[in-house]
Amino acid sequence: MVVLIKDLLEGDRTTIQALVGSSSTGTGKNGNPYLSVELRDNSGSIACKKWSPSESDKEILVAGNIVEVSLTVKKFNNTLQGDIQSPRLLELDDIDVARFIKPSPIPKEELIKRFNKLKDSIENKDCKALLEYFLKKFGDKVYISPAASSVHHEFSSGLLMHSVCLAEHADYFAKYYNDINRDLLVTGALLHDFGKLIELEGPAIYKYSTEGKLLGHISIMCGELRIASKELNITSEIPVLLEHMVLSHHGQLEFGSPIMPLTREALLLSIIDNLDSKMMVLDKAYEDVKPGEFTQRIYSLDNRSFYKAK
Amino acid sequence: MVVLIKDLLEGDRTTIQALVGSSSTGTGKNGNPYLSVELRDNSGSIACKKWSPSESDKEILVAGNIVEVSLTVKKFNNTLQGDIQSPRLLELDDIDVARFIKPSPIPKEELIKRFNKLKDSIENKDCKALLEYFLKKFGDKVYISPAASSVHHEFSSGLLMHSVCLAEHADYFAKYYNDINRDLLVTGALLHDFGKLIELEGPAIYKYSTEGKLLGHISIMCGELRIASKELNITSEIPVLLEHMVLSHHGQLEFGSPIMPLTREALLLSIIDNLDSKMMVLDKAYEDVKPGEFTQRIYSLDNRSFYKAK
Amino acid sequence: MVVLIKDLLEGDRTTIQALVGSSSTGTGKNGNPYLSVELRDNSGSIACKKWSPSESDKEILVAGNIVEVSLTVKKFNNTLQGDIQSPRLLELDDIDVARFIKPSPIPKEELIKRFNKLKDSIENKDCKALLEYFLKKFGDKVYISPAASSVHHEFSSGLLMHSVCLAEHADYFAKYYNDINRDLLVTGALLHDFGKLIELEGPAIYKYSTEGKLLGHISIMCGELRIASKELNITSEIPVLLEHMVLSHHGQLEFGSPIMPLTREALLLSIIDNLDSKMMVLDKAYEDVKPGEFTQRIYSLDNRSFYKAK
Amino acid sequence: MVVLIKDLLEGDRTTIQALVGSSSTGTGKNGNPYLSVELRDNSGSIACKKWSPSESDKEILVAGNIVEVSLTVKKFNNTLQGDIQSPRLLELDDIDVARFIKPSPIPKEELIKRFNKLKDSIENKDCKALLEYFLKKFGDKVYISPAASSVHHEFSSGLLMHSVCLAEHADYFAKYYNDINRDLLVTGALLHDFGKLIELEGPAIYKYSTEGKLLGHISIMCGELRIASKELNITSEIPVLLEHMVLSHHGQLEFGSPIMPLTREALLLSIIDNLDSKMMVLDKAYEDVKPGEFTQRIYSLDNRSFYKAK
Amino acid sequence: MVVLIKDLLEGDRTTIQALVGSSSTGTGKNGNPYLSVELRDNSGSIACKKWSPSESDKEILVAGNIVEVSLTVKKFNNTLQGDIQSPRLLELDDIDVARFIKPSPIPKEELIKRFNKLKDSIENKDCKALLEYFLKKFGDKVYISPAASSVHHEFSSGLLMHSVCLAEHADYFAKYYNDINRDLLVTGALLHDFGKLIELEGPAIYKYSTEGKLLGHISIMCGELRIASKELNITSEIPVLLEHMVLSHHGQLEFGSPIMPLTREALLLSIIDNLDSKMMVLDKAYEDVKPGEFTQRIYSLDNRSFYKAK
Amino acid sequence: MVVLIKDLLEGDRTTIQALVGSSSTGTGKNGNPYLSVELRDNSGSIACKKWSPSESDKEILVAGNIVEVSLTVKKFNNTLQGDIQSPRLLELDDIDVARFIKPSPIPKEELIKRFNKLKDSIENKDCKALLEYFLKKFGDKVYISPAASSVHHEFSSGLLMHSVCLAEHADYFAKYYNDINRDLLVTGALLHDFGKLIELEGPAIYKYSTEGKLLGHISIMCGELRIASKELNITSEIPVLLEHMVLSHHGQLEFGSPIMPLTREALLLSIIDNLDSKMMVLDKAYEDVKPGEFTQRIYSLDNRSFYKAK
Repeated sequence: MVVLIKDLLEGDRTTIQALVGSSSTGTGKNGNPYLSVELRDNSGSIACKKWSPSESDKEILVAGNIVEVSLTVKKFNNTLQGDIQSPRLLELDDIDVARFIKPSPIPKEELIKRFNKLKDSIENKDCKALLEYFLKKFGDKVYISPAASSVHHEFSSGLLMHSVCLAEHADYFAKYYNDINRDLLVTGALLHDFGKLIELEGPAIYKYSTEGKLLGHISIMCGELRIASKELNITSEIPVLLEHMVLSHHGQLEFGSPIMPLTREALLLSIIDNLDSKMMVLDKAYEDVKPGEFTQRIYSLDNRSFYKAK
Repeated sequence: MVVLIKDLLEGDRTTIQALVGSSSTGTGKNGNPYLSVELRDNSGSIACKKWSPSESDKEILVAGNIVEVSLTVKKFNNTLQGDIQSPRLLELDDIDVARFIKPSPIPKEELIKRFNKLKDSIENKDCKALLEYFLKKFGDKVYISPAASSVHHEFSSGLLMHSVCLAEHADYFAKYYNDINRDLLVTGALLHDFGKLIELEGPAIYKYSTEGKLLGHISIMCGELRIASKELNITSEIPVLLEHMVLSHHGQLEFGSPIMPLTREALLLSIIDNLDSKMMVLDKAYEDVKPGEFTQRIYSLDNRSFYKAK
Repeated sequence: MVVLIKDLLEGDRTTIQALVGSSSTGTGKNGNPYLSVELRDNSGSIACKKWSPSESDKEILVAGNIVEVSLTVKKFNNTLQGDIQSPRLLELDDIDVARFIKPSPIPKEELIKRFNKLKDSIENKDCKALLEYFLKKFGDKVYISPAASSVHHEFSSGLLMHSVCLAEHADYFAKYYNDINRDLLVTGALLHDFGKLIELEGPAIYKYSTEGKLLGHISIMCGELRIASKELNITSEIPVLLEHMVLSHHGQLEFGSPIMPLTREALLLSIIDNLDSKMMVLDKAYEDVKPGEFTQRIYSLDNRSFYKAK
Repeated sequence: MVVLIKDLLEGDRTTIQALVGSSSTGTGKNGNPYLSVELRDNSGSIACKKWSPSESDKEILVAGNIVEVSLTVKKFNNTLQGDIQSPRLLELDDIDVARFIKPSPIPKEELIKRFNKLKDSIENKDCKALLEYFLKKFGDKVYISPAASSVHHEFSSGLLMHSVCLAEHADYFAKYYNDINRDLLVTGALLHDFGKLIELEGPAIYKYSTEGKLLGHISIMCGELRIASKELNITSEIPVLLEHMVLSHHGQLEFGSPIMPLTREALLLSIIDNLDSKMMVLDKAYEDVKPGEFTQRIYSLDNRSFYKAK
Repeated sequence: MVVLIKDLLEGDRTTIQALVGSSSTGTGKNGNPYLSVELRDNSGSIACKKWSPSESDKEILVAGNIVEVSLTVKKFNNTLQGDIQSPRLLELDDIDVARFIKPSPIPKEELIKRFNKLKDSIENKDCKALLEYFLKKFGDKVYISPAASSVHHEFSSGLLMHSVCLAEHADYFAKYYNDINRDLLVTGALLHDFGKLIELEGPAIYKYSTEGKLLGHISIMCGELRIASKELNITSEIPVLLEHMVLSHHGQLEFGSPIMPLTREALLLSIIDNLDSKMMVLDKAYEDVKPGEFTQRIYSLDNRSFYKAK
Repeated sequence: MVVLIKDLLEGDRTTIQALVGSSSTGTGKNGNPYLSVELRDNSGSIACKKWSPSESDKEILVAGNIVEVSLTVKKFNNTLQGDIQSPRLLELDDIDVARFIKPSPIPKEELIKRFNKLKDSIENKDCKALLEYFLKKFGDKVYISPAASSVHHEFSSGLLMHSVCLAEHADYFAKYYNDINRDLLVTGALLHDFGKLIELEGPAIYKYSTEGKLLGHISIMCGELRIASKELNITSEIPVLLEHMVLSHHGQLEFGSPIMPLTREALLLSIIDNLDSKMMVLDKAYEDVKPGEFTQRIYSLDNRSFYKAK
């Protein structure tokens, strides 16, 4: 039977499977060394200690690993804390990673349905071919990857959710304003962040790969589009326009785009990308705030505190 | 019978009524002084000269005046040019100003209908009361004023069109994301730029008033909301939230907002205001450009040239 | 008999009345919880602990409250520290708030005299009427409020002192340079920061109100001037010029002014406001520094350390 | 008898002595080359032409030279214009340069009196010795040099006037605030811009010297103070404090100060230097503007137009 | 016999072959239309007019075309000017483009020799394979392309010269400092700007291609490296390190690099790229300046005037 | 016999001579006060405690002093720690300071040899005279001073090493590019940072002097060059050009240069100064990093982590 972290109680002695969220060494007042470890599953998280860790313990209790441990649960300063015994590394083949990371607010299945509906609405054959190419190339990673590398705020299928929301906004504005190549805009919205599938490495906690740190998801995806277009023998200007949208979607040089938007589609994409990202940040920040109160300072919003209207 | 500027031909000698778009003095090769005058109506414009202008001519042919003149039409460098005789100032009471300025791309009547539909959808009584207050206060100016002061690119009902588009986007996003006070967002979208009704002075060519230059439409509207809320005895937090949305809708201190957005509604308003303004700029810039070409450099878009996809 | 904090000695067991300057929770080495509390009166401050605080203790010992406590005074690391017993909340009606906050370096009475002298020197009737209006509207708050919200560096009558100094500088420069509307400049100097009377909330420790956070004192005072001018039926350009001075007195958009100074009076006001604020900061920073030494880094002066000449 | 430029009338044929304000070549409609030359004296200026100039004419009619010319005065576009004949270079020894440049708004003699009064009020012997040193070193140049290099807006004794005004403000603030070394502040105010006596070269129109362009007046004066202090064997910290005031008086690195103010005296000096410079700019800008109007855009004030209150 | 532009004399009537450097329309005083055309070869340039141009003339005399024209040479304002008759478009196949553009200061043959010597010194097989790949891909364009798009300051083989100089500096510093992968640094120096071979289009005057404007040479070359590495099946980290060097070689986000240098090789490359570019700019700017004088303001060096030491 | 810090072992009781690297006070769990002191020599460093320090102990164990102490060596958390007894201040006259600070990576003797070779290669007599002047003025300090003030990363002869490297690069580029005054460039490279000999005060740990903080090494050296040139009666433009190179070598106003480079020599100097400084920073940062890993964030390189190629 699976024990969920959210169900742990003071005094429990039990065995759980969990993802190591973070890990660091320390020394107690008594001079004994310990590892300070955060364990998580998709129900919650708990701070733990492994006292007098062996070399083997240190290799197992590493951020990103999925482990099985014996746990004694105590209360300290009104908070539950666990003492770890006998940590054991689980093989990824044996386990369902999804059990250990927070799910997206919208169910993955619904997101896939909306993604496919958008894809099926594309009539331009070059756009369609490129979409198919990348779905095939990246496979299931498209459906499960988070949209950001943060160890703390990521959730499963985050990339998928962000792509779908942007593409739906793209569809809305393509109908609202003149002179917009709708298929180009929707395709760009669906693909713009796919470079993150190479920039970030999982399986459970996503971190920047060396390639990700040295190139960034923008340049990676631009290069991948170039390869794809060559392999698919596309001769229209669609590939250059998509590469441009990918390159410019951060909107400003200082935000990592090497070029600013120079087409209406690229300009729109950069604005709605900004809009959706900020809405996701606010969703998170408002979570713990009551109407009539201010949030904590939000780093990615210029360190401002936001007010939640009554 | 009304003669329209677009119908003038080389050799015509006729009388037209027109708006003076600009006026400056010069001296010809023969040493004769002249006024160089641009005349406009809602069908087009023509460059004219008034040779050896009298003091009275100089007082009549001033930018913003609406005049009746006798015109002799010539061709110079492949362009039509008019020689003005007997300029006469028209009384604003006698004339329909709308005849002399470019109409909005969407008919005023349709915009009013959409504005009213949005207004009628507001259920919050304080929002509704404030909307009614300002419609009554500013009257018809709301329906005819441009959205910008530029002598060249303004069009009639520009403020109305911008307000309606923003409010419709507001409605779309209020449904899409969580935790949004929809009535607050839509009301803010409808009212956010009403300070321009004081900042800019008409009737035909809109220029900054002294008050507009010294205070700006943002601070003017914030003060007007404060007066309105006091007169209407509103005790909820709606007025402060609306004042905040008005103050922060330019999004950044360096763009003239004294405070950055601190509510989800204010943040959304500032992003869609930016989006709609840029779409209007691109509409204009793409007008004369063929697919596969770049526009002129666009001052308000960081001096970039935009590409029009094939 | 009133016991002052500056008179406490090691070993004292006594009862004092004090303002709670700050309050935070902690846990001792023995595992016992405590509140760490700073108590202040206008003679000084002392760090205290309330061990094993009850829920009621936590509600009483909140920053900004004025309390009566039994105190045992100890010495720790060469510094006095108090152990709190039996904290009791005092009613604001029963007490003289001034007893608990640092007085201004210049006595309040002298400041009021200088304020009134400046006011009486104003001959322009609109300026005079607006001054009277706001004195009546805000009453005694004008004379006692601090000039800044900081929990640490505020002092009583700070706003009054800053206003008087600025107005005296205004008077000096109005005589020195040409083309200055002296009454306008002096009135602007006296009123420019009155928005803080709404932005900040007392009574003892001043904090930003929600309205203050969402609008800021600049926009609040601009709106208040607009209301006042309407109620007083002023038709001259004085109100617009004063609103402009209030809006622009921070001098730069990035410092929160929505518009830069556009009159000589507004430009002068912004410069002397900057000058007086920095002198106040240096007064504070030089306090504990000997000639030939450098101050601590000063946050509001670009984090520089200032040298005190020998 | 001296003919002043302000007294010239249409049709005059006369001989005048004047400073060449600017000079450039052109070609007339008839193909004839000419020099376009502005001539000035302290009463005004007149635009002139020298048709078919010889090589010698071109060497004489150079900006900064003082010349004697025969002049025929015509009217063109309602403005007087002169035709130059027989230009002759005047030797500087033979002439009073002051006749050709605009005098300062305050008479030189009064400025010298106020300068000396300030100097005599200095009690600190090192400050006094340095003042005497530089007065002796630079001699009369101190009393006649302009404060800025601009060919157009300079006036005689500008440096003296700026130094005196700053030192008087220094005296005012030294009495107003605490902890100010008054003699240091006043001496710094008097000397801070003396580097311009090397940075700019006269005699009549002041231009940047090569040394001025490569080092700037700030670094030049800092070095001169270092030499002076060494030669005067000063051992107090006065020289370092004065060098610091000179280095930091532009207030910001981006304005050419290699270090920001780090003493109260240096901070005050930088603020009142900024204040007085801007007042001088406004004096000039308001000159041609009527109450209720806006000035031209002012380059050194962020290109703003200033309003002149009614 | 070939007539060179530098050999033309007043009064000549002759036929020349030349590159059209620029072309614009105008109208003479007599009302006749003309084309104002700059003609160039590798010996110099001459300003010309084609009066009353036919439609065919307008299509032939377009910037970038190479033409044969009959020319009458006149003198105007001391400068030679040509009157064009009978312009004829030359086929690129018939002509040696090098005849019409300025050669590089170092002969192409020497540059190729130095390029090959550097290439042959590379021992790392992946670096070598990539170098060979791109030499084969771009062929002779590598040896003749300019390094910049400017219509005015380009010269033939500019890209080659810049690449060779950088690679020689790379070799110097790789020996000077520790821990540098010399082959990586030299290869990066040789390849870093090859994206310009796609960004710019010739043959004679180089202009930005549409792909160049929308993507930029940095992203283009990064993508080309990605394709090359895939086709060459390179599995080392060399490709990612080279892509990183290409992406970061402008050193700052605001200069168009999407990522800042994160390896010692990338950091060195960005610094010596900056150094060599500025030296090339100064070479040009110092050309017409005598010792002891200042250059014109140089746009790409922050608009500074540089002094040429005596 | 000298005991080196690197040779200390757990359990040792011995006497060592060492430099106090840093010192701060604390209180132990038992309530006993202590000084936490870092001791260093050129072989390494050790963290120590002096329990219950007397006033005399506190005066001796001050950062920058060189002391003799009795030491008991313990192991704590796997690290050696010393208990200090009987600290005694050593007279600087009695000791060789070099024993206590980290030596430069290149031996001092070799650096002096390379410095002299560069000096001897100078043919311009003014350059040579200035070099001799400053070598005489500053004496041995030139050979031993660090190049930076940091308490942690300095090393002996750092200034010498930096000067020599820059001058060798100067020599390389003077041969590579045209129009460079080689002697000027090399002299500037050797002298550019000599102001640090006044800005920083030793003997062992270098800290900013008051003069250094108020003026900075750039302005100090500029003034010293001015004095030197006067005393040496140099009349060429060499002094002004060297002063300019010193003033501008930080390259940007925001980095503390009051003027940007305006000669080719000054521009080159600023670029290679930047290059060599960054290489020194990377040398340090790469020290503890294995190939294929990233460094810690580097403060002086925009807080980036650098990758060490495999």
